Amino acid sequence: MSEMQASIRPGEVVIDLPNRQDASLIFIGSITTPWARSRECPRQGDREKGPICRVNLDEPFRAALKDLERHSHAQVLYWMHQARRDLVLQSPRSNGEVTGSFAIRSPNRPNPISTSLVEIIEVAADHVLVRGLDCINGTPLLDLKPERCPEAPRPKTSATHAD
Amino acid sequence: MSEMQASIRPGEVVIDLPNRQDASLIFIGSITTPWARSRECPRQGDREKGPICRVNLDEPFRAALKDLERHSHAQVLYWMHQARRDLVLQSPRSNGEVTGSFAIRSPNRPNPISTSLVEIIEVAADHVLVRGLDCINGTPLLDLKPERCPEAPRPKTSATHAD
Repeated sequence: MSEMQASIRPGEVVIDLPNRQDASLIFIGSITTPWARSRECPRQGDREKGPICRVNLDEPFRAALKDLERHSHAQVLYWMHQARRDLVLQSPRSNGEVTGSFAIRSPNRPNPISTSLVEIIEVAADHVLVRGLDCINGTPLLDLKPERCPEAPRPKTSATHAD
Repeated sequence: MSEMQASIRPGEVVIDLPNRQDASLIFIGSITTPWARSRECPRQGDREKGPICRVNLDEPFRAALKDLERHSHAQVLYWMHQARRDLVLQSPRSNGEVTGSFAIRSPNRPNPISTSLVEIIEVAADHVLVRGLDCINGTPLLDLKPERCPEAPRPKTSATHAD
């Protein structure tokens, strides 16, 4: 049992998860960050002042990095391997408030996939340096996608939808 | 073989996927949209003019919707069940350009998880009505998370990071 699975707080509701596997994931790499334990991680990644983290790609997936350097920002999808998946109501703060798992961005959810928008610093042959992550060192990587930064001005052409 | 797995275009590169399952997903519901086939889907969801789609939650996950109605926007994660997972270089357009799978938002990727930012129209007991999706009818649902809309003004407090 990991440190995040240790206890249930008052008001939290645990369900019996369906005993089935509807789809399977392949870890395509891992993420190197400065944070060894979940309690050391920042609450949210900082694309301006956060540390540079390293997104490592395993073979045979490295070829899929081609052209990522054309983009300034990316969405990183990773697997929160320390999360518990059976909480539908949870109380993550000290104020006693109980919230549905789909109404907060807690790691604890039925499918513990996290998405982070990061700034791309450098794209190398087997890794990408990024700024804006908040996950524990060694987190398994699921995907990288180019993403428009919300702080950037929107394109002025009208071809965003039909393009 | 689905319609999306039918053919390889010139320049595309297929890999032998590792024969392992590193993690498993549970489908928590499904998405009802107007589009019966992938070729009918819009290229990108439209949060302003797109049709209202229905995100259906199965038991025992419905309780986790509590408080989602407090949010104006959500991130919807779903499984692109018709995608092929073994392409590292792909050529989705008619111009012959070949791009790495991590440099485009194509459904075809090692872990075919899509993320869409949607406007929340209504939160009911067993479903959520949203605007901004672009997926095929019947798409399996993985997760719902509250999300800030990029078009909205950013909060003026300085507590966004440490809050």
